Amino acid sequence: MKKDLKEIARLIRYYILTSSAKAGSGHPSSCLSATDLLTTLFHGNFFRANLAEPSYPNNDRLIFSKGHAAPLLYSLYLTLNQVSEEELETLRKFKSNFEGHPTYKFKYTEAATGSLGQGLGVGLGFALNAKYAKLDYRSFVLLGDSEITEGSIWEALEIASYYQLDNLIAIVDVNGLGQRGKTTQADNLENYQRKSEAFGWQTLLVDGHNFEEITAAYQELLTTKNQKPKIIWAKTKKGKGVSFLEDAENWHGKVLKSAELEEALKELGSVDKSLVKQLFLREPTSVPSAADIDSNNSFEREKEQEKEVKHRIGEKISTREAYGQALVALGAKEKDLFVLDAETSNSTFAITFKNVFPERFFEMFIAEQNMVSVALGLAKSGKKPFVSTFSAFLTRAYDQIRMAAYSKAGITFTGSHCGVSIGQDGSSQMGLEDLALFRSILDSVVLYPADGNATRALVELAYENPNISYIRTTRSNTPVIYEKEENFEIGGSKTLKTSLEDSITLVSAGITLFEALEAHKKLAQDGIFARVIDLYSIKPLDQAVLIKAAQETKAIIVIEDHYQEGGIFEAVCSELASLNSRVYSLSVKKEPMSGKPEELLEYEEIDSKAIIKKVKSLLN
Amino acid sequence: MKKDLKEIARLIRYYILTSSAKAGSGHPSSCLSATDLLTTLFHGNFFRANLAEPSYPNNDRLIFSKGHAAPLLYSLYLTLNQVSEEELETLRKFKSNFEGHPTYKFKYTEAATGSLGQGLGVGLGFALNAKYAKLDYRSFVLLGDSEITEGSIWEALEIASYYQLDNLIAIVDVNGLGQRGKTTQADNLENYQRKSEAFGWQTLLVDGHNFEEITAAYQELLTTKNQKPKIIWAKTKKGKGVSFLEDAENWHGKVLKSAELEEALKELGSVDKSLVKQLFLREPTSVPSAADIDSNNSFEREKEQEKEVKHRIGEKISTREAYGQALVALGAKEKDLFVLDAETSNSTFAITFKNVFPERFFEMFIAEQNMVSVALGLAKSGKKPFVSTFSAFLTRAYDQIRMAAYSKAGITFTGSHCGVSIGQDGSSQMGLEDLALFRSILDSVVLYPADGNATRALVELAYENPNISYIRTTRSNTPVIYEKEENFEIGGSKTLKTSLEDSITLVSAGITLFEALEAHKKLAQDGIFARVIDLYSIKPLDQAVLIKAAQETKAIIVIEDHYQEGGIFEAVCSELASLNSRVYSLSVKKEPMSGKPEELLEYEEIDSKAIIKKVKSLLN
Repeated sequence: MKKDLKEIARLIRYYILTSSAKAGSGHPSSCLSATDLLTTLFHGNFFRANLAEPSYPNNDRLIFSKGHAAPLLYSLYLTLNQVSEEELETLRKFKSNFEGHPTYKFKYTEAATGSLGQGLGVGLGFALNAKYAKLDYRSFVLLGDSEITEGSIWEALEIASYYQLDNLIAIVDVNGLGQRGKTTQADNLENYQRKSEAFGWQTLLVDGHNFEEITAAYQELLTTKNQKPKIIWAKTKKGKGVSFLEDAENWHGKVLKSAELEEALKELGSVDKSLVKQLFLREPTSVPSAADIDSNNSFEREKEQEKEVKHRIGEKISTREAYGQALVALGAKEKDLFVLDAETSNSTFAITFKNVFPERFFEMFIAEQNMVSVALGLAKSGKKPFVSTFSAFLTRAYDQIRMAAYSKAGITFTGSHCGVSIGQDGSSQMGLEDLALFRSILDSVVLYPADGNATRALVELAYENPNISYIRTTRSNTPVIYEKEENFEIGGSKTLKTSLEDSITLVSAGITLFEALEAHKKLAQDGIFARVIDLYSIKPLDQAVLIKAAQETKAIIVIEDHYQEGGIFEAVCSELASLNSRVYSLSVKKEPMSGKPEELLEYEEIDSKAIIKKVKSLLN
Repeated sequence: MKKDLKEIARLIRYYILTSSAKAGSGHPSSCLSATDLLTTLFHGNFFRANLAEPSYPNNDRLIFSKGHAAPLLYSLYLTLNQVSEEELETLRKFKSNFEGHPTYKFKYTEAATGSLGQGLGVGLGFALNAKYAKLDYRSFVLLGDSEITEGSIWEALEIASYYQLDNLIAIVDVNGLGQRGKTTQADNLENYQRKSEAFGWQTLLVDGHNFEEITAAYQELLTTKNQKPKIIWAKTKKGKGVSFLEDAENWHGKVLKSAELEEALKELGSVDKSLVKQLFLREPTSVPSAADIDSNNSFEREKEQEKEVKHRIGEKISTREAYGQALVALGAKEKDLFVLDAETSNSTFAITFKNVFPERFFEMFIAEQNMVSVALGLAKSGKKPFVSTFSAFLTRAYDQIRMAAYSKAGITFTGSHCGVSIGQDGSSQMGLEDLALFRSILDSVVLYPADGNATRALVELAYENPNISYIRTTRSNTPVIYEKEENFEIGGSKTLKTSLEDSITLVSAGITLFEALEAHKKLAQDGIFARVIDLYSIKPLDQAVLIKAAQETKAIIVIEDHYQEGGIFEAVCSELASLNSRVYSLSVKKEPMSGKPEELLEYEEIDSKAIIKKVKSLLN
């Protein structure tokens, strides 16, 4: 049947207005401006997806970067008979799958959105996956013009162009109005055109309420072969379809009251609800076999590269270097392991993986926010991304990491160059808040290996973790203390030194663990026995071992190359808070600076000398 | 005298090579590519500054966005006889003022850099200040091409253009090489030109090693009046001046060994150290009187707007609304108070200030990273910026906030819409990690008012704080519980309920304080007396009051609308860790979602019912 787009759009507007009015809050005017664009995408015979199988690999993807337009997303699927009126009426209600901004609870949501400026990077991740897997699905992203000022958008524009992702299509709803007034460019579409063309994108301008123009634009973009990502800047009206809402400044985030709704629906005219049983999407093309994909990639060729990574006790290697080797060893076995890095791969040692498996390594340049969103797109495509840069620079993408957690993504972040022990480069390069950041992420796992073999084991554990994992690696070499066969667990710890006479417990991880071991040795010479625990799993923690230490020794001292706030000490305190325990912190408390690693550990009082001094002061 | 730029550049290269070789680490090749550009800026009669008075208001500013080129910065000032050879030899040494990346310890540093992509926003802040204060200094920013992929750069490009800051001049050292290889555009200067022109910047391309071209470019840019910010894209060679370093890929962040240095210096040729006594900068123009500045601005006109903000006990007002009123009251008295917001001013209520003092309000649009860098530039210009958006979106600028702290800036951040109590909008909009973020910032103050009068008082305290402050505000209305005259202190608390029979202590702040008060009331009906403490100052904490509570009552329960990690509970635990105390957490532990505020408080078990249940379970 020839579908009447105008008719369908009217029905969608009806559901947007009624559902948000019923919810009592929301952003109907921001939905209305994008309605004609998406009605055409879905019902103009462009979007291809197997509705019965939302995770079918070759489905086209649609990411709602302007997540506050969620009712439009839900209403689109209502027109496809995938959402009932009753379900839509639960919009924004407690425990509803139809949340205020799209989350994974609505099965057609590709990634949680609502923090603006993130969707294009996610779409880029899906598009990159398609190229890798030789799939011909397209990745569509709906954006608002207000979010175009977010830097992450421009990071994505540059990187998508760099990777020639002609399967990525951005649709920008330029209604010219942000939350509180005009956007920087208002309706200056030519300005946007110049910008996106300068970034190498095939660019079209359309009237976002003219179905013929929109249709022609999709047709042109989806058929042109030019290795360019594509973008439509569509001039729209916020509140389109309801005259008193159209282009009005004070209607952002407001819903219609009963009388207003009545007036709006009257203006909209009668709608045909029977349409929902008559509408379908185009089917996606079938998926090539796994063999077809692999034959084109290096995986099989490179599998022979697999080798045992084994570090011998006493050998010195930095955990960052061991990280690179661990990626290679694991990557040889696991073909869904992908690695991203932000121009620091020769420092994080992600380059070790790149050198062996170049097809599964993506250089993301110095653009951390986009890197994390791309990882989210890859993760939601079934890949297992490992994302690395200096731990300090992961702070740049806190918001994206937070949203990845709300998207239930399995991504491992690895932050190198943590702590003052990096030395001469100074405070700007020191990760001193990374544990605070990752501990605050919902359901995260936070790991901090001390040696090469622990690194290998923790990389494997992170790979298996379905949620966000963080691995903290160290710049300096540290001696190998664990056998390769040593068993590590999420939530585990290693008691490295203990005796029947333990009077105090030293808890540490990473580089300061060796300061604790050194202090243990010297204290023993003075007849003081200190238990030493390697708390390599910071979240979750080994509660039993900590409680035992609290009960069996007079005090626990936590030593860490991190600010006190949010770090290992607070994690331990938090776990022992309801017990009669005494916990002390040796952490970074003074303003960090350039210097030699050993000078800075001493200055911050997190070296063996400071530990010994603290132990003696507590025991006297 | 007619200065020989080539000769001076040779001397600067000499100091870059020798000082970094002596330091044993650093980025000489990244300094060498920018040497001719900055030699011309300083010694070609362009840069104007009073060297004896680094904080003279009309000095030109130079921000080293590519902070790893610090030795170039130091060497430039050596040629002006402001740094001695002996001082330069302390480069990167412990406690030296000449750190690996520039910090405030070197007196000509405008802002700490080293985390890339931030300098342009800082320069924008300085440029905005000049426009406000009617000063004619210029704000120069040296950037590397590798950092151009950072989204924050494009945020700054857009906002500078929006505010027509023709006094902002970006100099980009396009050496084409990042840390590990070619940049996205390598030496494609035309691509950069198209981009910056599309963003509305006056753009020039030059050969960055041709003094005539560089000189002509500065001349043209500094004399054109067109209300456009200006940018020079300069094609350079990394390692320029030393043939074996030039354009070589494996020399990033590496210094010369002894024999290599000898060879390099030989190639460089003899240098004339006596130059340093002969070189001077142009003097800045004199500063207009304060009266001249103010007469052009609204301040004096608007001063009459000052009015008492007084909320009556029992009155209901949200702390976010009270925040806006407090800004107006304080802003009427303090003319250095500036307000920035990221397109959310009608939600954060920064708009209340804007409506009264429009000249001191700057709309920063949805670009949080740039907003924070601009605030840093304003703060280093002597202003007191208050920066607001939803607390969740401040995560976006964690890196910039961290760098502002290292720059010793007095900036107040205000995050609204904290916690699950925002309700229907769902997890993407809920600030649940903001306390973790701001507690981890060096020397920060973290405040969380419960009512309108506390908000007013805490805004005043934050204004006086010379470091980073954070104020957490709440979306919902809360009843006023404090008199206007109530005294608040950084590090203080309020014990709202106490008796001789207190068996337990409830510690809370903000919206959940009212749940604690409600629980107190109901528990009292059952004969259970709970002490209630309003911990409005989260960092620093009121240690004495907490210790007293730990000693006098059986347990402390901390209730907060924030994740457990890094929040109030951990702050309290941390403070009481070495005492025999029992502390329990009621905080957000389950995945947040859309719903009514009260449903979500109940679901997360941070409402009065959950408190009562917890108290009874602990006392039985």
